[in-house]
Amino acid sequence: MAKAKNILFIMFDQLRWDYLSCYGHPHLHTPNIDRLAAKGVRFNRAYIQSPICGSSRMSTYTGRYVHSHGASWNGIPLKVGEITMGDHLRKAGMDCWLVGKTHMRADAEGMARLGLEPDSLIGARVAECGFDVYERDDGMLPEGPDGFYDPDGAKEYNKFLKAKGYESDNPWHDFANSGLDADGNVLSGWFLKNSPEAANIAEEDSETPYLTGRGIEFMETHDGPWCCHLSFIKPHWPYIVPEPYASMYGPEHVLPVVRSDAERQNAHPVLKAFMDTKIGQTFSRQDVREAVIPAYMGLIKQADDQMGRLLDWMERTGRMENTMIVVTSDHGDFLGDHWMGEKTFFHDASTRVPLIIYDPSPEADATRGTVCDALVESIDLAPTFVDAAGGEVATHILEGHSLLPILYGEADALPRDVVICEYDYSASPIANVLDVSVRDAVMFMAASKKWKLIHCEGGYRPILFDLENDPDELNDLGDSAEHAGVIAEMYEYLFAWTRRASQRTTRSEQQLIDMRTKSRGRGVVLGVYDENDAPLDLTIKYRNRKARPFQSYLKD
Amino acid sequence: MAKAKNILFIMFDQLRWDYLSCYGHPHLHTPNIDRLAAKGVRFNRAYIQSPICGSSRMSTYTGRYVHSHGASWNGIPLKVGEITMGDHLRKAGMDCWLVGKTHMRADAEGMARLGLEPDSLIGARVAECGFDVYERDDGMLPEGPDGFYDPDGAKEYNKFLKAKGYESDNPWHDFANSGLDADGNVLSGWFLKNSPEAANIAEEDSETPYLTGRGIEFMETHDGPWCCHLSFIKPHWPYIVPEPYASMYGPEHVLPVVRSDAERQNAHPVLKAFMDTKIGQTFSRQDVREAVIPAYMGLIKQADDQMGRLLDWMERTGRMENTMIVVTSDHGDFLGDHWMGEKTFFHDASTRVPLIIYDPSPEADATRGTVCDALVESIDLAPTFVDAAGGEVATHILEGHSLLPILYGEADALPRDVVICEYDYSASPIANVLDVSVRDAVMFMAASKKWKLIHCEGGYRPILFDLENDPDELNDLGDSAEHAGVIAEMYEYLFAWTRRASQRTTRSEQQLIDMRTKSRGRGVVLGVYDENDAPLDLTIKYRNRKARPFQSYLKD
Repeated sequence: MAKAKNILFIMFDQLRWDYLSCYGHPHLHTPNIDRLAAKGVRFNRAYIQSPICGSSRMSTYTGRYVHSHGASWNGIPLKVGEITMGDHLRKAGMDCWLVGKTHMRADAEGMARLGLEPDSLIGARVAECGFDVYERDDGMLPEGPDGFYDPDGAKEYNKFLKAKGYESDNPWHDFANSGLDADGNVLSGWFLKNSPEAANIAEEDSETPYLTGRGIEFMETHDGPWCCHLSFIKPHWPYIVPEPYASMYGPEHVLPVVRSDAERQNAHPVLKAFMDTKIGQTFSRQDVREAVIPAYMGLIKQADDQMGRLLDWMERTGRMENTMIVVTSDHGDFLGDHWMGEKTFFHDASTRVPLIIYDPSPEADATRGTVCDALVESIDLAPTFVDAAGGEVATHILEGHSLLPILYGEADALPRDVVICEYDYSASPIANVLDVSVRDAVMFMAASKKWKLIHCEGGYRPILFDLENDPDELNDLGDSAEHAGVIAEMYEYLFAWTRRASQRTTRSEQQLIDMRTKSRGRGVVLGVYDENDAPLDLTIKYRNRKARPFQSYLKD
Repeated sequence: MAKAKNILFIMFDQLRWDYLSCYGHPHLHTPNIDRLAAKGVRFNRAYIQSPICGSSRMSTYTGRYVHSHGASWNGIPLKVGEITMGDHLRKAGMDCWLVGKTHMRADAEGMARLGLEPDSLIGARVAECGFDVYERDDGMLPEGPDGFYDPDGAKEYNKFLKAKGYESDNPWHDFANSGLDADGNVLSGWFLKNSPEAANIAEEDSETPYLTGRGIEFMETHDGPWCCHLSFIKPHWPYIVPEPYASMYGPEHVLPVVRSDAERQNAHPVLKAFMDTKIGQTFSRQDVREAVIPAYMGLIKQADDQMGRLLDWMERTGRMENTMIVVTSDHGDFLGDHWMGEKTFFHDASTRVPLIIYDPSPEADATRGTVCDALVESIDLAPTFVDAAGGEVATHILEGHSLLPILYGEADALPRDVVICEYDYSASPIANVLDVSVRDAVMFMAASKKWKLIHCEGGYRPILFDLENDPDELNDLGDSAEHAGVIAEMYEYLFAWTRRASQRTTRSEQQLIDMRTKSRGRGVVLGVYDENDAPLDLTIKYRNRKARPFQSYLKD
């Protein structure tokens, strides 16, 4: 085996950490992802930086916390000037390509301010979060009375479906994400009661196989070295899947809901507002869970089968030998746990993700098939890729840590005591419900292996979970006097993190160290009374100079 | 009087807050700056954001804290993408010009990454911190064995001197900043024993009159609306001044040094390292103070006379009636107080600056000649100027507050409890002395009107001064058990400040509020089980759609 030449960076969307058999799901068998885990390292405590697609991804793609890059919610553009995984990799001699979803919103105003044309090479990369685009597919093409959520959503995919013969102005909706009743009525996947229906599409034409095929096509036509971000839409909603996956799971495969009445009754006011949303209320219904979760599981099973197709092809074509393969997700899904649906809060159901890394290089042989318990963050991926590409990790920009030492068996932990996750709900209706300002509608999570602290701006008490004794996170200890010391300690971690110099990105640590001595020789002489008090070499330019009284020089 | 059409934004460099007669200096009479104060508002508690030229200025020019923009020391470039005073003002219809010093270091790597050419209009503005350059004069042209500190330093000024007849490869050094002995030896102003000498230059050719003249020339040739940053080099070192100012002050005008033996003996380890530098040791000598301070006072007196020249000309030409005039400094100078020289620590001698604002508009009549005790920061200037220009202050980018409500007599305070100042010594030799890492060589100050807390990274105890009972800041209470509560309270302010969303700059507060309701109508339907549970208008696109079983569509 040679050192990885290429990196296949696979991301699923809204894939909950414990919905894979290698992570312990009792009913959902995912032998293909499991087989990758058997060849690589499975990270058991991988956290994302924000429980929402766009912000989580911007952190992954920049290697920086949300608090550092500022794109803190879907639809808040990543500001021009932020340096991306693609920028770092290209500097290290590796291309960086996109096949699928990023949820990137370009900073059009910032680009205009700097005169960056979206159709120039540089402008396109800035607009696409540093990627060269093989196919951008943010997946969804929802449409409401005010128009499309994203007019370019599912653009290429819809073209593909139309070319295949699916007749509709929006086959993404009508076929890939809807069922059909006997009278020819489209049963929209947006409505959860339709989740048990089979999507009215040939399985091989649905989104996950489509993007898998696009990924294979990319690899067939690009030699490398490249990092290819193969970024799937699913198992993200709409929750609906074609046969045979639609019939594969039923209510009997739905795990018991993780929640308690006390949890709801005593909920912290901010958490309560999230529980009280329509989403929370709907997903708290067992009939909804029994409709949705089997479809969600079917989508994951399909994803695993496509992983099998992909891995088989890579094995067959020799690509396993020179390609690092990474599988992860951008966040999880509450699925009714803790009286919530969707993501957008900080329980492990939402903030913890699967992360499997297969490295073909011989250095990684020592760790194949192992499980790593280190606290890992999604911002660790960018530095890992730069490291794998043979580049120097720009530690003054990238806030994560390379995982190569772990993959090589040289380390079993990273230099961090807590993981950080953030959520900004300032643009969410919940901020109106709670009547909090744009500045206060912000939350931070700091979690060690033992404790998870959640801080909500706006004067609220903290939330605290004991992850060792209460792994289900049912018992909020945020107002426990007994835990005041722990809370103070976790706040210290958060405080230290907030003080970090996250914006000092234009000078490397080594450059700063070099400046400590190098700036002396450029003639700035401070604190010297007499030239004889200072080294001759440093002040030589100011010695033995001659002049005449100024009056003699002046011209008339 | 009309509303201000133009803004003349005057900055002196290293002008200590209490070295003007209107701020109470007993020997240094500055009637011209005082007369501006009599026409405007004199701010008595104005603080800068970092006690060093470059970082302080980057905060002033961006309206953002150092922790937000990242240019935390001289020579650390302001990263490409940061939005400047000039960007905000041009959006409000006002040009923004530079005459003098900025200490801007362009982010050449960032500009290259984005393809910004330094000679394009946009590139030049990015490289010059948002200003259009009438004259860039960072003042100094020091030269050492490793070359020039800034090869472009004093470029235009040296041309001017050469054209005037001053014969030298570096007349900035040999004439403007050096004396001359009877044998024709140049007595370099870099050596403090030469500070009492008269600079060997005609007074009208020295730096302050030169830049004043350039400012007048700018105004003569530019109608406006403009903001003109007339940014003087002096009274910054080299400390030397031509006659008549060289003979104007003597040791009898040097104020008693502000320090105590106990302060030195019990100094906090980081503070002690600053005291122990060569600069600190040299400025602790009374002979050095008696050599330097009279020259420093002469430079200020000259500056005041030039302010008189400028104000007289503006009065004569009617410009006082449509020009807001601001006078401030980028930081102070310890001048031996607290066993230190230079700036680079947090006592008021360094972090507090004069700030006088004259607004010609009738709305400001109510406050003419008043003194304002509000906690003001230099980041307040950019929003003040935008406000004066009639623009909308981008509160999601600019972290300061407009001072117009104070100038108009509508407010006597700003919405802040503490001022923040930062210092990054990671690139200073002091970091080697203390053996602290690049990440830990960082300090924060949080000061209310009563307390000043200084936090040093790296595990040190805090420093605390009681500004009410110990205005000279001689008694560090950082390890006083009695003050643990106050220290905790000041840390709370600092913590809240570090958590601010400083990078969420691509969406305004109003846009975020609008998103709370507007995003609903674009077809993303979450938490809806049955279409009948959801408003018809929001889900109408998904209803009554028809299709056939997918098998019937597929082409062969």
